[in-house]
Order: sequence, then C-alpha cells, then structure tokens
Amino acid sequence: MSENSKNIAIVGSGLVGSLLSIYLQKLGHSVTVFDRRPDIRTIEFSGRSINLAMSNRGWKSLKEVGIEEEVKKLAIPLDKRAMHVNGKPMYFQKYGKEGEAIWSISRGVLNRRMIDLAEAEGAVFRFNEKVWDVNLPDAKIYTGESEKSEWKEYKYDLIFGCDGAFSRVRHKMQRRSRFNYSQNFINVGYKELTIPANDDGSHKLDKNSFHIWPRGSFMLIAMPNLDGSFTCTLFLPFEGEVSFENITSEKEAKVFFTTYFPNVMQDIENLTKDFFKNPTSAMVTMKCYPWTYWDKVALVGDSAHAIVPFYGQGMNAGFEDIYVLNRLIKKHKDKWDIIFKEYQEQRKPNADAIAELSYRNFIEMSSKTADPKFLLQKKIEKHFSKKYPEKWIPVYSRVTFSDSPYSEALAIGDEQEKIMKDIMEMSEIEKKWDSLEVENSILKALK
Amino acid sequence: MSENSKNIAIVGSGLVGSLLSIYLQKLGHSVTVFDRRPDIRTIEFSGRSINLAMSNRGWKSLKEVGIEEEVKKLAIPLDKRAMHVNGKPMYFQKYGKEGEAIWSISRGVLNRRMIDLAEAEGAVFRFNEKVWDVNLPDAKIYTGESEKSEWKEYKYDLIFGCDGAFSRVRHKMQRRSRFNYSQNFINVGYKELTIPANDDGSHKLDKNSFHIWPRGSFMLIAMPNLDGSFTCTLFLPFEGEVSFENITSEKEAKVFFTTYFPNVMQDIENLTKDFFKNPTSAMVTMKCYPWTYWDKVALVGDSAHAIVPFYGQGMNAGFEDIYVLNRLIKKHKDKWDIIFKEYQEQRKPNADAIAELSYRNFIEMSSKTADPKFLLQKKIEKHFSKKYPEKWIPVYSRVTFSDSPYSEALAIGDEQEKIMKDIMEMSEIEKKWDSLEVENSILKALK
Repeated sequence: MSENSKNIAIVGSGLVGSLLSIYLQKLGHSVTVFDRRPDIRTIEFSGRSINLAMSNRGWKSLKEVGIEEEVKKLAIPLDKRAMHVNGKPMYFQKYGKEGEAIWSISRGVLNRRMIDLAEAEGAVFRFNEKVWDVNLPDAKIYTGESEKSEWKEYKYDLIFGCDGAFSRVRHKMQRRSRFNYSQNFINVGYKELTIPANDDGSHKLDKNSFHIWPRGSFMLIAMPNLDGSFTCTLFLPFEGEVSFENITSEKEAKVFFTTYFPNVMQDIENLTKDFFKNPTSAMVTMKCYPWTYWDKVALVGDSAHAIVPFYGQGMNAGFEDIYVLNRLIKKHKDKWDIIFKEYQEQRKPNADAIAELSYRNFIEMSSKTADPKFLLQKKIEKHFSKKYPEKWIPVYSRVTFSDSPYSEALAIGDEQEKIMKDIMEMSEIEKKWDSLEVENSILKALK
Repeated sequence: MSENSKNIAIVGSGLVGSLLSIYLQKLGHSVTVFDRRPDIRTIEFSGRSINLAMSNRGWKSLKEVGIEEEVKKLAIPLDKRAMHVNGKPMYFQKYGKEGEAIWSISRGVLNRRMIDLAEAEGAVFRFNEKVWDVNLPDAKIYTGESEKSEWKEYKYDLIFGCDGAFSRVRHKMQRRSRFNYSQNFINVGYKELTIPANDDGSHKLDKNSFHIWPRGSFMLIAMPNLDGSFTCTLFLPFEGEVSFENITSEKEAKVFFTTYFPNVMQDIENLTKDFFKNPTSAMVTMKCYPWTYWDKVALVGDSAHAIVPFYGQGMNAGFEDIYVLNRLIKKHKDKWDIIFKEYQEQRKPNADAIAELSYRNFIEMSSKTADPKFLLQKKIEKHFSKKYPEKWIPVYSRVTFSDSPYSEALAIGDEQEKIMKDIMEMSEIEKKWDSLEVENSILKALK
C-alpha cells in the first residue's frame, strides 16, 4: 500500500457507492461500504424501481475502471422510442444518429453485479449495519440497531456519503450553519409494474425500444429486461380526477388500464396484481451545497443531487461525479481538501443543470405533448437538425450521447428555445414550417 | 372549561410561542409552553439579536388580545431613516405619511414581557426542557437531557411548533414523504453591537430614527432602546475583501470602524469589545410546505417561514399567522382539520411573498443603493407618489403600514417595477424626471 493509501468508509451500497468503491480500491485505498439494508444479492428486489437507462456518461465511467463490457452483458440497447398514442398505430422515434442508443438495465441486476465486482477489487461490505450519526471533523461514523440503541464507533480517514436522496451523511451536514438545502416533491407518483415474457421467453413488445404511452397528465413507460419481461413504470398524479388516490380497488384498476392502455390489455391481470402489490413512490428534486466537509467527507450521487427521473440521467450523473472525482484525485494526489473543493465547484453547476432539464422534461411530458404548437416546433427543430447536424445538436443528444457539461447543454438549449420562439411567431408557420424561409431565419439567428 | 377546550403544547417560548399561548388561553384552552433554553427573564440576553421593528401587522395582532398598549410602553416610534452616507452630512428620509412609524423594541425586553403576560393568562411554561422527538399522529412530544438520554413522553390534543428557523417539530415533519423544504443562507452575516447611552441616560443619536450607514457590500444599522442605548447590527460578508473573515484582531476592527464609520468613532472601544464578544450569525430564508399535520400539529412563525431581516417583518409575519389562525378558530370552532388547512393555504403565499420581498431588500441594500439610476428611479417614484398618493402606494408602505396581504404588495410592486422600467428608458430621463411628460406616462401606464 502506498503512503497515500487511506482508510475509507462509503455509506450506501447502491450503484454509486459500489462503483466508487471500485475506483478507490483501484487507487490503492482500503474501502469499507456500509449499508442499512441487507445484501441485495440475497433478497428480492424492492418493486419500486424504474429501469435504468445507461448512456454515454455512465459507460464512460464504467470503462475507466474496465468494467464496461462486463456490464454491457446485462443491458439491452434501445435506439428509439416506441410511441403508443391512443387512436394511432404505434410508431417509432429514433433517439439519435446511427449507432446511438440508451441501454436498459434492471437496477437490481446491475447493483448485484456491481457489488460482486467491488468485492473482487477488495472492497469490504457491511450490510444490515445502520449508520445513525457522523462526526464530520473526525471522520467517525456511528452504527447501531436503532437511533436510541447502543452505537458502535468507527474511525476513518475519509467518508463518502453515497446514501441517496435521504442521505444520513448529508443530514448531519445539513445541521451546520450556512448549508443550503432544498427538497421539492412533484405531485406525480410512480409505481413499478411488470409485463412478463412470452412463454418462450421472448419479449412481448419490440425489445430495442423505450415504450411510452403518453396520456397527458399521466403516462406508462416500459423498458426491456434480459429475461424477456418489461419493467413498466406508471407515472400518475397522487390526487385529482385520474390519480392514485382514485384507484383503490381491483375493479377500478382494471377500468383504468382498459380505458387508457388498450394495447396492454393482455397483461391486465398482472398489471392489476402489481398495482396493489407494489408501493407508490414519490419523486423529489434535492439540491444542497456544500457537498463536502473539508478534507474529510464528501457526498456523491443522489445524496448531493437527487433529480426526477424524466431524463434518465440520475445514475449517469452520479457515475460522472465519480469519474470527475477520480481525475481530481489523480491530479492532486493526497490533497483531499483541494480535491473536494474542485469536485464540488465543478459538479454543482452541472448537477443543477441536469436537475432543471429533468424537471422541464416532466413538465413537457405532462403538459406539452398534446399541444400541436409544441409538436410543430419539435418537427421544425428535427427537420433543421437533420439538414444541419453540426449547427443544431438537440439538447437530448448533448445530455445523452455526449459528455459535454450538463450546464452547457442547458445553456445551449435555452438559446435554441429563444430562436424557436421567434420562429414560431412567424406568420403561417404551420404552412411553411419546412420552407427555405424558415431554414434561413434559423441560420441567421444562429450567427 | 368548554367542551371544545383542548390540552395544547407549544414548543418554543419566543415571541410567537408566547403570543400564541395568550391567544389560546383566551380561547379557553390549556397551554403548556416548552423551551429548551432557560427562562429569558432569569438570564442575560444572547448578544445575537437585531432590534425588532414592530409595525402595523404586529400591533394589530397584539391589540386583538388587548396587550397593544402594554407593549407600546416598551417601544420607541421611528418615523424616519437617518442616513449616514460617507462624505455627506446626515439626512432624514420619512417612512410614510404623518403619524406612520415603525417601533423599535429590544427582542429580549419584549420576550420577557410577553412571557409575563402569558403566565398571567394561565399558560404554563416549562423551561430547560428539550423536545427531541414528536409523534405527529398521536400529538406526543418527547423531552430529555440529550438525544440519547431517557425521554419523558407527553400526550396532547394539539401541538404548535413555534421553535424557530431550526424547528425540531418541523424537522420531524420533514422526514415525511412529499414535504417540500428549502433553506438558503446568504453570504452576509451579522453581529450585534451596542452604542451606550450618554452619562445622563439620553440617546447619543436622534432617538426617533432608524439609523443606517450604507456602505455598498456592508452596512451598519442602529435602533434605539428605552435605556438610552442603541442596539446596532453590523451586516458584513463572511468572506471577501471587507469581511468578517478579515477582521481578526482588535487593531483590524478599529481600522475598520475608523475607516468606514467615522461618526461612531466616539464609541469605538465599545464597538470593538462587542465585536469580539458577540457571535457572528448567519441569515437564512427557510420555506416549507405543508405547515400542518392533519388536525394535530401546526407550525407558526419562523418554524414555517424564516426570512432574512431586511424588511423588518419576521416577527410581524409570525404575529399575523396567529391573528389569522385565531380568526379561523373562531369561524370553524372545533374543526381543527379545516382550521389548519385554511391556515396554511391562506398564509403560505403571503409567507413566500414577504420572503421574496425581504431577500430583494437585501440585494437592493447591498448592490443598488450606490447606483445613480436606481436612486433616480426611487426619486421619480417618490415624486409621483407624493402627487398621487392614492395611485402609487409604495410597496414599503403596503408591507409596513397596512395589513393588505403580502402577496398583493409583491404583485403590485412588480407591476410598479414594470412601469418604471419603461419610464427609465425614456430619453434624457435624468433631465426631465419631474416633468409632466413623465408624470403622464406613469398615469397612462397605470390605467
């Protein structure tokens, strides 16, 4: 072990915690990962997961420690959306250019594999051990059966809080003066549902598509799993006319699925069963700052920046945190105060940007997808982008298929939006949307 | 006792907690007030207080329970600002119309009196008793020496959290799903300082003025006390060129006061002593929602909506919460679920509005008071308002001298700002600022 080797605690054995442990072990540190939950490899999954969409930033971070190929075996590439619009035949929307795709992975399947890989690197996992308190200046953690039981004290050189949106480590930082913090829930909840495989193990829907049933204030999505099943997520308001609050019996659930999702009728028994078996979960945007405590403690992933899932970037953003952290560790060696300072300064604007983009996608999906003007705008953008791919990279592509900073994607997206606002105000835009006049106006505005 | 009489716990014996206990006792309930601190009547004040500026909303709330006159004995009316601008002789700015004033009261002096008045109404105070946990559905509170010590359980019908910006009661509500919360600190801190009375007990500065020494990124204010002293507050950035971070010795403090506040030189020994004796405090805007838990628990005052002090409305807003709550209790009698629902729905937009106005005043004070364009705009507004007092009520007057909703003051203020933006863009506005042309433009815009 080198003289710079540290004794490090990671709180949380989720995706970010386990990937970070791999990185830190490879750097020569000794990592212990604490988790209040049992080993996910020994239990059933929670029934509250949305399938993951691994994209560029995620793969880049896995590749850096040589586990990209290993993880790709668990993933299915989706190169398009499959749109199930009521009253229309299903149609496809390509995500990006040839060869660009997002990859569907079951959270549970990936988490299990990541823990295997981390253990293979020498990380030690302590499951079922609940962290209740953290001494920030001394990098000590306290675990025990309950908040009021006898506690065990552990002393480390560094602590990383990878314990998610409701992080206990952050909770402790939050009590300090001048710690900025916000949590904002949206009024829509979600529930995991399943469409099982065909009897022969094949997928019931096109397996290389991200399936969406947009229904205005609510929607259903489905992402494929390796075993032929689809993990579906129903996004639905908590309260209101069509809402979780108003679906309380099997009969009401069946009416709901039959009315709004006729082409999943064949699986209605299963969907209804899942509807009452699985919990309804809330979605939150959580922001905070600072993310670090001197050279002792740092938050990584959701514990620092939980976002709503409508851009599929939660895990990707967390993995990119680790990628950036690793670069800084290599640059500054043992100077953890500088590493942590630069880490939070670099990542905070990007975390805020992807939070904003994710929230906007939620608004877009719930209120704009039925607006003909919005759809026309998107059509014009696509038309132009196809003709001038270098001049107009859609925000979605910047976020998903590049690793340019999220904050840049947001800023350029805002510029594009401003240009399109003027374009949409051109007289008779509906008729001349694909005209040279419109094209030239965009070109001029881009200068 | 009537059949509707409730056994009520209030957490926090500050201004809001003690006034609420008076209201509730008068309504026939039995109130116990818990406070983790000792009885403020038995100890010295904290040295971290900004003097209070009681204005219309505060007085209205005291009058409703007949203690306005009693409290007025502790207060000094301030009908103007006394501006101490470097390089200029001191000058006055009237606050409002004839007879309009804000009232300076020492927080400690007021708090002591309020507890006396509350005890006289029959409220029971339990000082030095720390609340660590709250059972929301059962309205139970748990107190003890420390978080991990043996706890005592108390059962009530209702609990009110009046325990300030870092409320323990809210802390418990915050752990529930779908609880929105934010805390944002500003980069400026404050410190309490004192200018003592003259030897004969008289005030060293005009006693009916709110004294301000604006200095761009920082400022000093002074408010009179009955004993001839002034409680001063120094607002100064935590970091940066001129900042708390950079004043670490008596010598540096003396240079600071001599350089920037030459007309308080006579008190430099005292200011310097206070500077190192008193703590530097942070300022936070705290928002949350919901404010209530069914018919069991409600947050009142800073625990629901802490704001930065630059509008002097923190206490006034908290007292107005109580005034509104009282109206709703009288209207809905024993229906606490309806009372709490209407209370939070009515007060939340107003709390958000005064938070925004207070934050804007901070920005205005720190960055705009030296901007000639901003000063010209204020001059035009004042000129117009004097001529058309019914058509242009300044936001400050709506907030301070009326009880129309804060949210209305904010909305009308935004309208006025929009009008003035156009006015300021008129050519040669510097020359014709008091012309009929400008006047007519405003009149037209107001239609």
